[in-house]
Amino acid sequence: MTTGAYDYIRDGAAIYARSFAIIREEADLSGLTPEQARVAVRIIHACGMVEIVRHLAFAPDFVRVAERALKAGAPILCDSEMVAHGITRARLPAENPVLCTLRDMRTPELARFIGNTRSAAAVDLWGSDVENALVVIGNAPTALFRLLELIRQGGKRPAAIIGMPVGFVGAMESKDALAAFGEIPWAIVRGRLGGSAMAAACVNALASHAE
Amino acid sequence: MTTGAYDYIRDGAAIYARSFAIIREEADLSGLTPEQARVAVRIIHACGMVEIVRHLAFAPDFVRVAERALKAGAPILCDSEMVAHGITRARLPAENPVLCTLRDMRTPELARFIGNTRSAAAVDLWGSDVENALVVIGNAPTALFRLLELIRQGGKRPAAIIGMPVGFVGAMESKDALAAFGEIPWAIVRGRLGGSAMAAACVNALASHAE
Repeated sequence: MTTGAYDYIRDGAAIYARSFAIIREEADLSGLTPEQARVAVRIIHACGMVEIVRHLAFAPDFVRVAERALKAGAPILCDSEMVAHGITRARLPAENPVLCTLRDMRTPELARFIGNTRSAAAVDLWGSDVENALVVIGNAPTALFRLLELIRQGGKRPAAIIGMPVGFVGAMESKDALAAFGEIPWAIVRGRLGGSAMAAACVNALASHAE
Repeated sequence: MTTGAYDYIRDGAAIYARSFAIIREEADLSGLTPEQARVAVRIIHACGMVEIVRHLAFAPDFVRVAERALKAGAPILCDSEMVAHGITRARLPAENPVLCTLRDMRTPELARFIGNTRSAAAVDLWGSDVENALVVIGNAPTALFRLLELIRQGGKRPAAIIGMPVGFVGAMESKDALAAFGEIPWAIVRGRLGGSAMAAACVNALASHAE
């Protein structure tokens, strides 16, 4: 200990391998298809909770449709900078653009104009980029509600929606609304749990099968 | 419903107020000082789990020292881009610089040279910026272990350390090592839980008392 060194694994690949082995040993993945289980494992890895599986839900065609969209070059539209920065660019199959409009200069004024949060206004700014995109909501329930409203009003439709906002006000309700909407393949974390790390992990799992 | 509108709170300030009211109603903050409770509330808000309080631990002088450092202009050194992008710049009391060296061009080669992960190598690149900084680890146990090693080898000492890496390999051990080291004020989430959102929320709570 005179060198100040601790005893821990220093090899990134070995850490990943050991982590995924522990997850597959401890997590109950029996209710999921193999494709969903692969996504679930990566979400567990991001949050440190094997029990998150109980809160995960997927439309039956979600993984297939979302993976196909990414391979076809779909843009990835994110509700927060944290989500955007959690997506590993090197895993993306088609150098897919990753967009977040929350810090767009027009967002604050648009939020006042539509009488909604900045996160919701940022969704309006996606405009026609939404069409066939992969939408990833990891922070704001209002962004998810707003997206569904725009679609119901005749707006462009994304290929698939990852709905994983976190928190105490509107998060549960917005995710239930997404699952009930049903027309666009979705993945959610039910209830209050969710967040940018889980949402980004979901994208990273869809983007590449490499662990 | 013909307009496609959902029924939800659209006012950001009202959502925050309602969220914090729910948290203060549900969370058991009795084991914390008022200052620690304020930090805990914001961490709960970030992860959606009132029960995270049971896993939080603080050195007695952590909040005081970390807040003083931020007011004095301390840089904020982050182990991941997600942590860096979760810190609300407008809350910072002294336009504190927020740094992350993970994507520095020198990081991959340095990682090979020191035989450790890129996250650990990124800590080496902080160099003398560590002195009196607020260090925020929200992702990589190896970054936290490496920081402690460098300090034990005579390196510069930060003002305070937020140790909240997440996961299954080394996370628990690295946080226990931080608390046992004891010489620098610390805040941790014990066990596997943690992550960039909690770590950034801790900074945001220290940066400003506004809710």
